[in-house]
Amino acid sequence: MTVTGVMRRSSRSPADQLDVRRHNLSVVLRRLRTDGPRTRARLAEDTGLNKATVSSLVAELVERGLVREGEAEKGTVGRPGQAVELAGRNVCGIGAEIGIDRIAVVVRNLGGDIVDEVHEPVPTQDLDRALVFDRLGALVSKCVGEVTGDGGTPAGVTVCVPGAVEAGDGVVRVAPNLGWRGVALADELTVRLGQPSYPVRIDNAANLAALAELGARDAVGTTELLLLTGDSGVGGGIVSGGRLLRGAHGFAGEVGHMPLDPEGMPCGCGRRGCWESLVGLPALLRAAADPDDVLHDPALNREERLDEIARRAEAGDERTLRALERVGTWLGIGAAVLVNVLDPQVVVLGGYFGVLGAWLADPTRREVRARTLAPGAADCRIDLSGLGFGAAVRGGAQVALEAVFEDPSVVRRPEASPAGEETQEDSR
Amino acid sequence: MTVTGVMRRSSRSPADQLDVRRHNLSVVLRRLRTDGPRTRARLAEDTGLNKATVSSLVAELVERGLVREGEAEKGTVGRPGQAVELAGRNVCGIGAEIGIDRIAVVVRNLGGDIVDEVHEPVPTQDLDRALVFDRLGALVSKCVGEVTGDGGTPAGVTVCVPGAVEAGDGVVRVAPNLGWRGVALADELTVRLGQPSYPVRIDNAANLAALAELGARDAVGTTELLLLTGDSGVGGGIVSGGRLLRGAHGFAGEVGHMPLDPEGMPCGCGRRGCWESLVGLPALLRAAADPDDVLHDPALNREERLDEIARRAEAGDERTLRALERVGTWLGIGAAVLVNVLDPQVVVLGGYFGVLGAWLADPTRREVRARTLAPGAADCRIDLSGLGFGAAVRGGAQVALEAVFEDPSVVRRPEASPAGEETQEDSR
Repeated sequence: MTVTGVMRRSSRSPADQLDVRRHNLSVVLRRLRTDGPRTRARLAEDTGLNKATVSSLVAELVERGLVREGEAEKGTVGRPGQAVELAGRNVCGIGAEIGIDRIAVVVRNLGGDIVDEVHEPVPTQDLDRALVFDRLGALVSKCVGEVTGDGGTPAGVTVCVPGAVEAGDGVVRVAPNLGWRGVALADELTVRLGQPSYPVRIDNAANLAALAELGARDAVGTTELLLLTGDSGVGGGIVSGGRLLRGAHGFAGEVGHMPLDPEGMPCGCGRRGCWESLVGLPALLRAAADPDDVLHDPALNREERLDEIARRAEAGDERTLRALERVGTWLGIGAAVLVNVLDPQVVVLGGYFGVLGAWLADPTRREVRARTLAPGAADCRIDLSGLGFGAAVRGGAQVALEAVFEDPSVVRRPEASPAGEETQEDSR
Repeated sequence: MTVTGVMRRSSRSPADQLDVRRHNLSVVLRRLRTDGPRTRARLAEDTGLNKATVSSLVAELVERGLVREGEAEKGTVGRPGQAVELAGRNVCGIGAEIGIDRIAVVVRNLGGDIVDEVHEPVPTQDLDRALVFDRLGALVSKCVGEVTGDGGTPAGVTVCVPGAVEAGDGVVRVAPNLGWRGVALADELTVRLGQPSYPVRIDNAANLAALAELGARDAVGTTELLLLTGDSGVGGGIVSGGRLLRGAHGFAGEVGHMPLDPEGMPCGCGRRGCWESLVGLPALLRAAADPDDVLHDPALNREERLDEIARRAEAGDERTLRALERVGTWLGIGAAVLVNVLDPQVVVLGGYFGVLGAWLADPTRREVRARTLAPGAADCRIDLSGLGFGAAVRGGAQVALEAVFEDPSVVRRPEASPAGEETQEDSR
């Protein structure tokens, strides 16, 4: 279907007409993203909306700081018009992350550039929860301050959590590796950010990482993607038909507890031989080194441990290579189950699976190829993530921005802001 | 979003304008399905299209036999208009099925009624393929003849196959239980139907069964559904966001070969302990009776075997009950993997899992509840199919009709038909 669907006003209720207006704002904003700077006349032609409507929509987008007057359009026949374009640097989406041993924030503008990226080590598992909220609130506030200090507008904050997050209500249902259950994280953070006018959302880290991987490929044809991210557990993020598969509650992608080896090691969930217990980072460390080996030194952080493993593998250390081969094989056995169920175009290995992909990818590919039933499904690609452990927080920033493209009215007009700190514009 | 998206013509190519016209035909036809008989004025109001356009669209739908003049609209203020309504009985979708031991055809009209349902035993595994095509072609032709004999129009045929079907090209890539690989079934059937003007498609049986289950619930809120159908193997059909999850090639839903019991029985795929080898009908029969038991008598067909098992279970036969408990437990262990991955609202147990659901459902529910990680995801319902082994072929008829709602122009105008048998209308 090559024609953009736009909505016309009909003799409906004011609420419906507001929907139509919002939808058409979104249509125009997306056009400017995909097609670049355009004149109003061209936008009218491309969207099927009439010129007066387009002018009014553009005026509102300019007012909200999302669009600005650009260059005169080149390469058009006849009188050149004044083009409008995305005000790429004014509006920023903020991704934040609560990981096992760190918190992180990434700021991304409407044009897609990363404009800020900070993280700090925080032992989130051991720390009192309120302190974790405080630390995250302080880090996000600092980044928001930099955005507004530069004259920009924060469009929203999306926080990634390694756990099950109920779609919509901002509550972490359960995050086993943080020891959290029923934590109203969005509310806690909203308070610490001083009840901001932009939305604060939370989402599952693997879901957001999957969206970031989709965005990073930039390949128009990629609509079916499975992200598998390795850390102390295994996270799964599923993209189907170009959209995140969230399931009924937003819990889809819980792939770590497939019972693949009933005689295997105990798993944190209380059973034996779950996939996570076979391919999580602890399983690799256990297979790669005795308990008194430096690899298990609690003073090392995750990156240092992974560097040490990579160093040993490069040096040809047999035990390390055997451990990687074993984990890669189990990674492939589990991935094959998911490839059979989901038939993705590409499986992206993220987190530590990507970092050690030079050794893990081959056995993974071998098992997936051997165990994929439908001929042709086996040509599913197994790619390494280029985003590493930073995928989820980038995805958070992306989602915060995507909400603007879906409903540009979430970015407030300056005059609609509450009296106080945001009115400096008026005092020029 | 409460407003229907319609498309307006813009100054685009004729091809685009054809797209717009098709889309708007579809919008009007769907309105009549969901809202019932309407006047043209009301349709214009509800869709946002102008009245002249609606009149022209309705005229075309009438011409194609999809819509007819109905009663004067009741309950409206002011002058009542002449309503139009779906011409429910004129246009029929045809579902056909190639099963392991039978072929079947179901005919369903635009109003949703089943108007014909036939099947015959055919040993599809053992018979020469060309003979299977001949038998299916003959059965479909007979049903098509009845439709056209009653003055109706066949909208299309969709054939269900228990195997991996590449989306779009009409080829069965592999159907292990039929022993088929690379069979151009759509072409073979098209030839046997005399190159009809309606489309002949093929699809995976579990996919079509999942769509039929979705249709049968009729429940507006069901968008996330997993169908598990038990036969000699296990078929999976996944509905997410209200649409079939097909994956990159149309192979999604291949759930039978999850390696759940590495020490288990050999599977047809060459490995051990695949889910299918634990819960397929042969596993149940093996566990329920010694080889010389009448249950294994080759003279019995599937229904007779299942009746005998149900009879023994009702009589309290311990071995039968133990076998059902064991299969139900493994069914739940595998289903839990999928519930964790997909987070559906409902898992429908179809095929023999539904027929013997009185004994299989409880252990299945128990395992799913115990093994579902996210609290809340565990309230996923486990329902029994009401459609039994007939779900897939019903889904085929449904899909053939759905194509009409998507693009009403697939149903040819009478004057566009090739000269010959279809011109009887003109000789009145």
